[in-house]
Order: sequence, then structure tokens, then C-alpha cells
Amino acid sequence: MPFAPLQNDSFLRACLRQSTDHTPVWLMRQAGRYLPEYCATRAKAGSFMGLATNVDFATEVTLQPLERYALDAAILFSDILTVPDAMGLGLSFQVGEGPKFAKTVRTEADVATLAVPDMDKLRYVFDAVTSIRKALNGRVPLIGFSGSPWTLACYMVEGGGSDDYRAVKSLMYSRPDLMHQILAINADSVATYLNAQIDAGAQAVMVFDSWGGVLADGKFQEFSLAYTRRVLAQLQREKDGVVIPRLVFTKGGGLWLDEMKFLDCEVLGLDWTVNLAKARAQVGDSKALQGNIDPNVLFAPPERIDAEVAAVLESFGQPHMGAGTGPTHIFNLGHGISQFTPPEHVTALVNAVHTHSRRLRTAA
Amino acid sequence: MPFAPLQNDSFLRACLRQSTDHTPVWLMRQAGRYLPEYCATRAKAGSFMGLATNVDFATEVTLQPLERYALDAAILFSDILTVPDAMGLGLSFQVGEGPKFAKTVRTEADVATLAVPDMDKLRYVFDAVTSIRKALNGRVPLIGFSGSPWTLACYMVEGGGSDDYRAVKSLMYSRPDLMHQILAINADSVATYLNAQIDAGAQAVMVFDSWGGVLADGKFQEFSLAYTRRVLAQLQREKDGVVIPRLVFTKGGGLWLDEMKFLDCEVLGLDWTVNLAKARAQVGDSKALQGNIDPNVLFAPPERIDAEVAAVLESFGQPHMGAGTGPTHIFNLGHGISQFTPPEHVTALVNAVHTHSRRLRTAA
Repeated sequence: MPFAPLQNDSFLRACLRQSTDHTPVWLMRQAGRYLPEYCATRAKAGSFMGLATNVDFATEVTLQPLERYALDAAILFSDILTVPDAMGLGLSFQVGEGPKFAKTVRTEADVATLAVPDMDKLRYVFDAVTSIRKALNGRVPLIGFSGSPWTLACYMVEGGGSDDYRAVKSLMYSRPDLMHQILAINADSVATYLNAQIDAGAQAVMVFDSWGGVLADGKFQEFSLAYTRRVLAQLQREKDGVVIPRLVFTKGGGLWLDEMKFLDCEVLGLDWTVNLAKARAQVGDSKALQGNIDPNVLFAPPERIDAEVAAVLESFGQPHMGAGTGPTHIFNLGHGISQFTPPEHVTALVNAVHTHSRRLRTAA
Repeated sequence: MPFAPLQNDSFLRACLRQSTDHTPVWLMRQAGRYLPEYCATRAKAGSFMGLATNVDFATEVTLQPLERYALDAAILFSDILTVPDAMGLGLSFQVGEGPKFAKTVRTEADVATLAVPDMDKLRYVFDAVTSIRKALNGRVPLIGFSGSPWTLACYMVEGGGSDDYRAVKSLMYSRPDLMHQILAINADSVATYLNAQIDAGAQAVMVFDSWGGVLADGKFQEFSLAYTRRVLAQLQREKDGVVIPRLVFTKGGGLWLDEMKFLDCEVLGLDWTVNLAKARAQVGDSKALQGNIDPNVLFAPPERIDAEVAAVLESFGQPHMGAGTGPTHIFNLGHGISQFTPPEHVTALVNAVHTHSRRLRTAA
């Protein structure tokens, strides 16, 4: 049974550098703890993984922010670390803490046991994608996603979050051969995983290279960018005759745009340290840009949020209008929304994006 | 009584873009917890502030790394947060945790009570500078330092370290007027403090903008760079007829080198995300560059440390040789050394810098 036709295609058009009457907006981690309705569903589910692995719950929380805000895209509710969990590393989330793996990958013996996981172990994700796509009923497109090979490796080697990346960088600097083995397996796993999400109904896919920016110049290219490229090369470009845009976001990657602009993807995500006008000039005609307001702007009063949104839109400048393709901007935060964000401030942000971006177009 | 004449002036020459027969090297946080002799002295002192405020202890730990390694500069043992402590905020360090302030600065009333502190409260720092300078006896030059106005403000508003800078950015986005008031007071305090360090015997001074890189483009220029500039404008340029080089290090500042190159200082510090060849081309003839190896390289075996050091030196390329001035490089880490570093690995790094940088010069 085919899915319902899409009513709001502004996000997908902007991904493909086609004109839209407003700048589409969605927010990284838009279904999350800042929403009381999310916390209520999570309480019912018992745990984060209980939430993510239950198709009904995952569908419910994915749609929650769309009920409140005029967002132009939905993103699958899941975690960037489902793939290493399916590899058998045992993912869990303690309340008030980040993700933890029961097993770490640090030795030759550990690496020898790693393999692309059986995608049946990730069936819950693909089922959620299909369920969400149906529930959306064509309202806005659905974005699938995964962590990048390097970002997954950070968690797999560290066993969780880190503030210095000592374990993963020790391995990288001491045994680059082992690190390359891990990354190759991760890249092939991520590609398989994203292709299965596309088969299940994802209309765009995003690679979150959350920790690429902690690498030294030279090492980023060798240990992160090369494996993002390996993922992209394996992704299906179309589904049922419709192009599936691919988005890549490296937090802290602003210094490497001259190299990232050659990635075989449609959209580059940017964090708030990047000047959008400079990035637009640097990246040129190859990519749409996504980002990049500081999530902490959402702690200011609504009138200041409005001014900061206008500044980000104006920094990108006039987007492409009319037929054909040209520079386009997808509005987003420069990183995930904070759990402490007042929900009504998000209303101010989303409305400001729509209002100011329409004004920007008529001012042309 | 004048201090002893300087025997190794390679660091000061490189700061002034004059030739040296090797690339000088020192390490951020070189007197620190990775050294067992430091831990022994700290145990005697009872606490970090007990160590920093005692002239004899501060002198002893400043010289400890020089006994082990052929470093080309010493840096005052102190903390970047002594200035807000002298403002009355009550600095302390809990074992295994970062710095904490007893009082925070978040409201109009809090800001109203802030002022440039009485420098007598920082007498222990100036006494330590003089004592260390005497104890060095001309071996290598002594660097004084302070946190930048923005970095101090981060800790003053947050009350300690932070992983999201929510409090300080909430204040910045909600009440930029208050933030500017804090930063103006911080800048004038830091300038007074560094000038007093110069009077006490510091032969170069460094501003650590450890958290400038967390700011959004536009906000960095307004809330960090502008106040670093205000500090620099107030610093004495010479002492007893000798130029006092000024170094500025913004961690995560690589995207803003086009603006930082106009700072009125002699040296820009860079973290490991920056490509030294590109930075050299970008900054041009105005500044020496300092940095930028990833401190995590020190967890690799010595032969790999050697190779990584060579790569960083070669990335900068041939430094200026002969008379006059030209491009120079001061080798350093891209951030402070980890407390978990094996001390013998630092020997490998320092020796590699000296050996390879001499080779690089003769290969010309």
C-alpha cells in the first residue's frame, strides 16, 4: 500500500536546492525531554530503549512536536547508537546520564568479533519508520538517521560519552589499523541500516557526525570524513522514482567545509560557530545548507529569539527563488535542543523562521 | 636587583618572529598532575589553592617539568580564575572536580557589586612570579597568564565548569547589557593583573580564551574578541627596554583567524583542529603561531609520538631563518596536557620537537 501524498514538501525541495515560499524548519532532537508529553510517554515506556523499541511509543513521540509547532519535517525517534547495540555491545541509558555500552571495543580481540549486524535486530527501527510514515499521512516528510562511523566508534571504544576522547584517540594514535577496521565495519553497517530505513519509508536520511569535530586536522579527513564518504557511496539515491536527499552534519566541522563540500550528499548541516554567508560562498553551488542557531537562544525571551532568528536568516541571505536550482537554507539549531528549553519558546522560534523568511523573499 | 641574564631566548625570539636554531617548545599545563613530584607537592599543600597561594610551593612546581624535560619556557603555576576569586566570588577546587565559585554573577544586583579587584589580593601571584623568575636564574623565560574576559565570565556566571554554557549564554542572549558590563570589568581587571605580573618579572603574557570557541559566529566577535582586544590595548609593551610578547589562545577559534590576525599581539595559539599551513597563509606576516598537537598523541607509543610531532612541524613548514623577521612556530599542545599522560612520553615529544625542527632547518 503506497503512503499518502506529501502535502508540505518544503523541506525536500530545499534539500534539492529548489525554491520554497518559506525557509523550512525542523529541530534536532525535536521529540525530546523538553516536552512534558514526551516525558509522560517515556514514563509509560519505563526507559529510553523501551520507548525507542516500541513502535507505538516511537510513533507517538515522533509526532508530538508536530502537534505543537508548524515544523516542516519529522525525524524518526530513535538513537544514534542503535547500530552498535545491534552489534551486541549492550546499549542502555541511565536516568540523568548519557548512553552506556556494557561492552567496549579496545583490543584486537574485541575488533575481531565485530561485524555488520543482522538487520533483523534493528527491525524495531524499520517498523517504527513505516508506522510513523503512515501516521504522518503526508503532513511533512520523515527523516531517517544514524550516527556516523567515527561517532559510533567514539562510543564503542569509550563505552559511553567522554569529555576528552582519551580511549578512542589512544587507540587511533596507537593502532590506526584497528581503528580503520572498526570504521570500515561501522560504515558498511550504517549504509545498510540507512538503506533499510529508506526501504521502510524514510524520505531523507541524515548522518550525525556529532564527534568529528574533536579530531585533529588530518585525522578528521582520515578517520571521519573518509568513512562518511564510504556510507554515502552505498546509499540508494531514489526510492520509487523519488530522490532521497542525504544530509551530513559534523559538529565542529566548520574548518573543513572546503573538503566536505565534495561529499556526495545534498545537504551540509552546520553548527552555530559557522558564518552562513561565508559557508554559502565557500560551499558554492553544490549543497543546501542546514542550521545553525545556538540552542541556547531558546532561553532568551521571545522577542530576542525573534531577532536572533532574523539574524541567522539574513546571514544566509536571499535564497533561490523561481524555477531550477540555487542556494537554499533549511533552518535548524546548531545542535540538539536542550531538555531545559521552555516549550513556548520553540513556538516563537518556528513562527519567526516562517515569518521572517517569507519577508526576506518578498523583499527581493 | 636585576634578574639573571637569559640563557635560552628561543621562545622569546620565536614570539617576535626572529629566527632560532630549533622550534621552541613548552606545554600548556606542563606543571601538573601527570607528574608524580607535582602530586607530592600538592599533597603537602593540602589543596590546589593552598599550592597556588604559597610562593615556595608555586615556585617548586613551576620548575618541576624543567628538571625532567628540555622545555624552552616556564609558565607561572597558577589558575586562570584567580581574578574572579579576588573579586570575592570564592574559588575552590574539589578533588576530582573542576573549579567552583561560592557566589555566581547572574543578576543586575550581582553585576552592580562587581569591580576591578584590589591587586593586593593577588599579591601571592606577583610574589610567585618574582620568586620563580629568580629560581629560573635565566634558564628559560617565564610566561605569565590570565583567563580571557569571556572565559572568566563563563565561570563567574555558571559558578564552575559547564558542558552547555546554559547560564552564561542565557544571560548573554537575554541581557546583553549586563554581559557587556561584566566583560568590561573583567577586561580591565585582567589588564591590570597582567601588567602587575610583568612588573613582577613575567617575560611574556598569555590570555587563555578557553571558552571563546563555544560562542556563535557574531557573538564571539562581540563578547570575546572585543574584550581580549580591550585587554591587549592596556598592556605595557616593554619592561626595562625589553619587549614583552603577548600571546592569545582561543580554543576552537580556528574559524575566526581572519579576525584574530588583527589583534594587537605577537602570537596566536591554535588548537589541533587547525591546519598550520593554512593558518600560516591566512595570518600572514603579522603573528607567530603556537601549537597545536592533540594532547592525546601522548598516549601513543614514543615512535608514534615522534611521527606525529614531525607531521605537525612539517605542516607549519620551514620557519624563518637568518636576520630580520619572518614566520615562526612555537610548538605546544592544542590544549592542556592530560593528567593521565605517562611522563616519559613527554620526553619523547620534547626531544622529537628539537630533533626534527633542527633537521627541518638544515634541509632548507
